[in-house]
Amino acid sequence: MSAPTRTLYRLGDLAAEVGGELRGDPERRVQGLRPLDSAGPEHISFFTHPRYRPQAEASRAAALLVDAENAAGLTRDLIVCRDPYRAVARLLQRLHPRPARPGGVHPTAVIGRECEIAASAHIGAYAVLGDRVRVGDGAVLEAHVVVGDGCTIGPGAVLYPKVVLYDRTEVGESCVLHAGAVLGSDGFGFAAEEGRQIKVPQLGIVKLGREVEIGANSTVDRATFEATTIGDFTKIDNLVQVGHNVQIGRGCILCGQVGISGSTRLGDGVVFAGQAGAANHLDIGDGVRVAAQTAVLSSVESGVAVGGTPAVPLSEWRRQVAALRRLPELLRRLARLERRLDAGEGQPER
Amino acid sequence: MSAPTRTLYRLGDLAAEVGGELRGDPERRVQGLRPLDSAGPEHISFFTHPRYRPQAEASRAAALLVDAENAAGLTRDLIVCRDPYRAVARLLQRLHPRPARPGGVHPTAVIGRECEIAASAHIGAYAVLGDRVRVGDGAVLEAHVVVGDGCTIGPGAVLYPKVVLYDRTEVGESCVLHAGAVLGSDGFGFAAEEGRQIKVPQLGIVKLGREVEIGANSTVDRATFEATTIGDFTKIDNLVQVGHNVQIGRGCILCGQVGISGSTRLGDGVVFAGQAGAANHLDIGDGVRVAAQTAVLSSVESGVAVGGTPAVPLSEWRRQVAALRRLPELLRRLARLERRLDAGEGQPER
Amino acid sequence: MSAPTRTLYRLGDLAAEVGGELRGDPERRVQGLRPLDSAGPEHISFFTHPRYRPQAEASRAAALLVDAENAAGLTRDLIVCRDPYRAVARLLQRLHPRPARPGGVHPTAVIGRECEIAASAHIGAYAVLGDRVRVGDGAVLEAHVVVGDGCTIGPGAVLYPKVVLYDRTEVGESCVLHAGAVLGSDGFGFAAEEGRQIKVPQLGIVKLGREVEIGANSTVDRATFEATTIGDFTKIDNLVQVGHNVQIGRGCILCGQVGISGSTRLGDGVVFAGQAGAANHLDIGDGVRVAAQTAVLSSVESGVAVGGTPAVPLSEWRRQVAALRRLPELLRRLARLERRLDAGEGQPER
Repeated sequence: MSAPTRTLYRLGDLAAEVGGELRGDPERRVQGLRPLDSAGPEHISFFTHPRYRPQAEASRAAALLVDAENAAGLTRDLIVCRDPYRAVARLLQRLHPRPARPGGVHPTAVIGRECEIAASAHIGAYAVLGDRVRVGDGAVLEAHVVVGDGCTIGPGAVLYPKVVLYDRTEVGESCVLHAGAVLGSDGFGFAAEEGRQIKVPQLGIVKLGREVEIGANSTVDRATFEATTIGDFTKIDNLVQVGHNVQIGRGCILCGQVGISGSTRLGDGVVFAGQAGAANHLDIGDGVRVAAQTAVLSSVESGVAVGGTPAVPLSEWRRQVAALRRLPELLRRLARLERRLDAGEGQPER
Repeated sequence: MSAPTRTLYRLGDLAAEVGGELRGDPERRVQGLRPLDSAGPEHISFFTHPRYRPQAEASRAAALLVDAENAAGLTRDLIVCRDPYRAVARLLQRLHPRPARPGGVHPTAVIGRECEIAASAHIGAYAVLGDRVRVGDGAVLEAHVVVGDGCTIGPGAVLYPKVVLYDRTEVGESCVLHAGAVLGSDGFGFAAEEGRQIKVPQLGIVKLGREVEIGANSTVDRATFEATTIGDFTKIDNLVQVGHNVQIGRGCILCGQVGISGSTRLGDGVVFAGQAGAANHLDIGDGVRVAAQTAVLSSVESGVAVGGTPAVPLSEWRRQVAALRRLPELLRRLARLERRLDAGEGQPER
Repeated sequence: MSAPTRTLYRLGDLAAEVGGELRGDPERRVQGLRPLDSAGPEHISFFTHPRYRPQAEASRAAALLVDAENAAGLTRDLIVCRDPYRAVARLLQRLHPRPARPGGVHPTAVIGRECEIAASAHIGAYAVLGDRVRVGDGAVLEAHVVVGDGCTIGPGAVLYPKVVLYDRTEVGESCVLHAGAVLGSDGFGFAAEEGRQIKVPQLGIVKLGREVEIGANSTVDRATFEATTIGDFTKIDNLVQVGHNVQIGRGCILCGQVGISGSTRLGDGVVFAGQAGAANHLDIGDGVRVAAQTAVLSSVESGVAVGGTPAVPLSEWRRQVAALRRLPELLRRLARLERRLDAGEGQPER
């Protein structure tokens, strides 16, 4: 069990990779990226907030990713860049890539008829694929993935163990689906009839764009007729529920335990913080930001930030919250006013 | 990969199926049901809201499901019925049935001792059944379903991939359990002891009535001693948590991410909107309706609609919300009153 | 299908087991523990609240677990103990132990290279273990468990079906992980770049102490660099989300659907009621109690109980809630005051 030989990276190359300015020795070499306090001389590190200046000065790291403002006064090797956090993301991808999986189908995998599986794709132990499934180049289906009939999995997509795709689900290029995620389960549609609930069959599909990430045990329901869609680069956290017929734009962020009800549309760049939700049949415009635990019960214009249950513009919600804290005091002041007025009213009649 | 031959259905038969009045040619035939804008002459469609009248008039569909009110003025083939949405549900079931699974046990399935599996039941790849499991006629256990010892699965029930039933779970006739649903996990019971938490073993079971549907990755805990029960025709959405000892009546609806805490009882026809929850040991009467993200913290009488955290009657919650929006203004008005009274109080003394 | 022979337990031994005082026949024998109304003469039962006195008197149980206060006036065999609920937990564990699983690896399990699996450990059907996995004495991995490379599973731990451990997850002694739980999935970290979201690779791990319980379909994300940790004796319910870098202390309780955002720290003995959440980068002190559906948006000092969205001290939240209910009335009173002042102001000038 020997550790693999580490690749070494020149600081000059890393600076170029992130479009940063190197202040220091371009030939110095590192093998990984670590936080300030755990980095050693073989690591690059990052300094993203003034409060960490003492740690930045004390760090044993070979060099720091830092913006121009925080770089001032530091007398060590630096890669100065506009957005150090983005640079961290880029360098982690470069220095710590996901271990590659070899192409090939595990002998225990059960593969249906007329499937098209790229030779470079990896199909893990006990995976079960239905009929007419297509799997693109370099895609990875880990152990115990279950894929229904007629699904498409784009090149470079990664499906962690236990992912379930119902029939005809379409997963775009380089998507990442975490363990236990379920895509394409029936939308929640029923018609009431004399104390019973009659199921409305769900004929549509789920369709993900490229580089979509879906968190562990999250669920995305298939549409009633057409497609529940999630746009390119949208990232969804764990235990999120996306209802049937929902349309989500590009580059959105849905944090943990968010719920989007049926037929609601989200524009591009929308952010839902944790445990927030949206009612059904709403339009949520581009760039809308929704605070944690907010319930969006009516449509929201592009660019607006909202909070509260039911949601109101964030500044209004903050005023409500501040006022709510003063409410008990307000009740006392009101009662005092009433007493004063009761006492004073008689005066003019004196 | 040839498409299967489509069955064709007479409009006259479909009208009879939904108890509707056919206005048009009973011999006309359709092969499916589609929304107004995507239906072709081989489809039936539906028109359920006046705002869609232009689409209803323009649709290429062979005929429309519609109620008497919306039917007025339409000069095309119609099936006029009391509840068109329910008719849609009925006809989708008829025209687009779930593909049948052949009876039989996949050679990779692991079956315990003394199981009774109907010949018409389907047991998928890598399913694992414990001892003494009974599976009824036509039941479908998809790939990777895991069933504990002593479970009972009723005729016609469908368990999608990755469903887990702990020991002795009882699933009624024609239930549908979506992927990743877990039934019978231990109730959350612990006794505190000097900084530790001691587990209270959970000896009971989970018992579902008939035609219960459980959404993807939802969880239902086993009772401490007796049974956590879910009544006939109750429908539960994705990522819903049902605690131990809970009793849920017939025909209830629990939307996505709802949570029902231990030992709470729901009557018949109760509706919880998304992300709502109920505390433990409550009685929620028949027909209670709970708004989205509501926290029900005390018992609710039958027929009442509630909202808010903590829940109050819905009309009261709406008044609270409206008043809350006026709260900052109210604070200003109160301060103004105080200033006026401060200024005016001296007057009588002048 | 014969029932196993029941073990019989002397009341005297059971009293000693729970540190209680036996009032009655130490030689009397029981075979199980049941609630008051379903216990027979072969069972011990428990009486924990005065409202159940009639049932306690009528119960057919051989003996009752009861505290000194409730014991007064009862003329039957009793085991009097300080905390009867804790005694119930202890005796259920003793009288109704989880059925033992035989040691050994199911022939269908797929085991990676250089694994160390104790001979007494049980590896179920279709389990898949990566390379260098260590499994301790008596640990149970039920069917369909998937374990990544380099994971460690402590002695006596139980992993129910469909548990997924990503690479290098560490599970302590006697932990219980319920079906569908996912440990070690990527933390939710992305850097925005021109409408895209760039993934921040997550290099850390998840580490559980001893006797940690994780509910069905709950998710715990791996840290960015170090470890997401959950302390000894902490119990987590179903569908709970724990974000990356979170540090949870000992003996905490997280109820169903709770969410803890990234990098937040919980002290020891913290309790989150159902559907509550905490924002990221917070410090939640020892013994903090968080009410249901509360959103903790700032750090909380040790020992404080909080409620509301955003969270405030519980007593303050209760005052807010009470005041909120009076808000519509308050608005009316304010308007009345304004009218009175408007009418009265002219008076002194008369």
